[in-house]
Amino acid sequence: MVLIVQKYGGTSVGSPERIHAVARRVLASQHAGHRVVVIVSAMAGETDRLLGLARAIGRDDPREMDVLLASGEQVSVALLALAIRAAGGDAVSLLGHQIRLMTDSAYSRARIRTIDAPRMFAALEQGQIPVVAGFQGVDARGNITTLGRGGSDTSAVAVAASLKADVCEIYTDVEGVFTTDPNICPDARKISRITFHEMMELASLGAKVLQIRSVEVAHTHGVALHVRSSFSEEEGTMVVAEDEALERIVVTGVSLDANQCRLTIRELPCRAGIQAEVFRPLAAAGVVVDMIVQNPPAEGRANITFTVPRTDREPALELLAPLVGKLGAQGVRTDDQVSKVSIVGVGMRSHSGVAQKMFELLAAKDIEILMISTSEIKVSCLVPRDSGEAAVRALHAGFGLAEG
Amino acid sequence: MVLIVQKYGGTSVGSPERIHAVARRVLASQHAGHRVVVIVSAMAGETDRLLGLARAIGRDDPREMDVLLASGEQVSVALLALAIRAAGGDAVSLLGHQIRLMTDSAYSRARIRTIDAPRMFAALEQGQIPVVAGFQGVDARGNITTLGRGGSDTSAVAVAASLKADVCEIYTDVEGVFTTDPNICPDARKISRITFHEMMELASLGAKVLQIRSVEVAHTHGVALHVRSSFSEEEGTMVVAEDEALERIVVTGVSLDANQCRLTIRELPCRAGIQAEVFRPLAAAGVVVDMIVQNPPAEGRANITFTVPRTDREPALELLAPLVGKLGAQGVRTDDQVSKVSIVGVGMRSHSGVAQKMFELLAAKDIEILMISTSEIKVSCLVPRDSGEAAVRALHAGFGLAEG
Repeated sequence: MVLIVQKYGGTSVGSPERIHAVARRVLASQHAGHRVVVIVSAMAGETDRLLGLARAIGRDDPREMDVLLASGEQVSVALLALAIRAAGGDAVSLLGHQIRLMTDSAYSRARIRTIDAPRMFAALEQGQIPVVAGFQGVDARGNITTLGRGGSDTSAVAVAASLKADVCEIYTDVEGVFTTDPNICPDARKISRITFHEMMELASLGAKVLQIRSVEVAHTHGVALHVRSSFSEEEGTMVVAEDEALERIVVTGVSLDANQCRLTIRELPCRAGIQAEVFRPLAAAGVVVDMIVQNPPAEGRANITFTVPRTDREPALELLAPLVGKLGAQGVRTDDQVSKVSIVGVGMRSHSGVAQKMFELLAAKDIEILMISTSEIKVSCLVPRDSGEAAVRALHAGFGLAEG
Repeated sequence: MVLIVQKYGGTSVGSPERIHAVARRVLASQHAGHRVVVIVSAMAGETDRLLGLARAIGRDDPREMDVLLASGEQVSVALLALAIRAAGGDAVSLLGHQIRLMTDSAYSRARIRTIDAPRMFAALEQGQIPVVAGFQGVDARGNITTLGRGGSDTSAVAVAASLKADVCEIYTDVEGVFTTDPNICPDARKISRITFHEMMELASLGAKVLQIRSVEVAHTHGVALHVRSSFSEEEGTMVVAEDEALERIVVTGVSLDANQCRLTIRELPCRAGIQAEVFRPLAAAGVVVDMIVQNPPAEGRANITFTVPRTDREPALELLAPLVGKLGAQGVRTDDQVSKVSIVGVGMRSHSGVAQKMFELLAAKDIEILMISTSEIKVSCLVPRDSGEAAVRALHAGFGLAEG
């Protein structure tokens, strides 16, 4: 008997009508002979409503914010359990503390340690569908914790791992993972199988289908993920271990990140440890630095160029301003008219010339490359912002990803 | 050092502004040198919003309804803890499962068994204000339970008992308990001290300031109650044990219950056990029968007249219809154009003639008395509905309860 964990996001449970649709879908899986455990997020809009209340109070204490936000999933699990009963099934809602989903005490970004599987198995043995609150857990002292935005994906994968489920289905409002954004390339193709590594690179590049941490956890615990739409019966995208990937496609997908800002520290004196001094305050402030390029020094001085999310531009500049004088650099230049375009694929590890082909394809369209960074399974280029979408189309077509 | 438990109802925490006002009030008590523990209800309107969602789902499972409704208090404790911090204090929100407020498993009307006081004392010792979610608890298996509408009063009293608090202050939107409804008698006076027994009689008669169960629990555990307004600094009403009541006023208050319906079963054959047969189906269906009068039998037959809440009129009639023929009665008559007016006071135990004075006062105003029922500290008369308010005014003035 197959054991399936199904996770439904906020849009999928965004209204009573949609909750009824989820209930029917869950029961259909049960009627097909499967054992089903469901994880749900807060109803779409609920988290923003709660954040609005907290803003009106005007204080942001991490412990109390977690207590506040966790109430959103409490509402949705109760409603889904009611809806499953209304549809003739049997269900029991379970909160973080009830399945003892134990985490560390890092409020708002807690990490899962253990989960009490017997409580869920007990419900399954009675023919009940456990409806588990995503996003929330408790620490060793019983304080409520949350796993961060999108944390319900991680809840689902962790629950699937603890139950040794056959598959973890992530229901969302898209049909799966695509070779690129269909809004940019109408001929983008749904990927039927993708490896955990490729998924992680695509997730971090902005394909916001899955919380990246959930992919890591799935990879570590060997949980098969199936990303699919809650609004259709179509198969979605299976995220699998590398040895299960049937074909070694060189490039699996093309992604675009238009939320980048480039900063250049000009004529930084070269000496050991200077890079650490530059990035230390940014790291301490939680500014995520993405691409970093340092050109070869000339006359003992070099430019360091790096990218940060556009929203971090002002904080980054404030942190760097006092450093520039202290370190003897000539100043900081910024440019937010840039986009990052990336190609991802495990196949490129065993293929040479993939980066070169990317550069050729961009050159053929007269697209300027401002920065380059590479990893084993990814090549990223920073391009002018107004060339971003053209770059995606050129790469998507050039690497043969189009449908049909 | 005085230990105070303060309970704030839904209206008192109905908006971010009001939550800030509560935070200031709580901190003022702490700054005055007291240790303070706070209990809060869900924000006004929140319970109705959640019930609306459940209605849209169209199913009413008791366990899941409790999970759903308990989320309301989770939101308000988090917001109040944030507001106390915003005002420079230190607070920690605590949910039912976190103070191990253990109840039986009667969802939606659970009874409290035990509370874990050390968690709250630990917070107090660190100078923190524990902000406890009212209305909710957990049963022995960790299921969430709720205590019924108004259950936060009972939570507050039970927490006060477990902490051996010096006083339990119930903050509400009225100034205290009045000698009668000020909307009917503008000269109604706020009662400064009232006994538990009087309060229970007044509460059950419709003075909806306090959940009656909370008064019982306060009485049993000797918790001093102080009912007062969250919108003013005035002293409210102290609810105390009888031996602490300074003066034995004969009549403490006059109450009116306009939500009554009178039913008469005509010419019921008299035999042992017949009353039990009449009321058994009503009790089984949860219909609360209030006044019961049986006139002396004539020719082996008697009329039994009793009152039920007007909303229970149709269910009561349906339950009685098959009985009438079976028991050989002549039929059922109903009248919902009635009101119950009552006088309450522990002093009447040692005073004769109180009921007689009540009848005289009503007679002087030509008010017809349809039914009478008495207890040790209460006399109630059923009167025509359109005479109810006149009856209250006559009794309030006649027993000298008016202000000044």
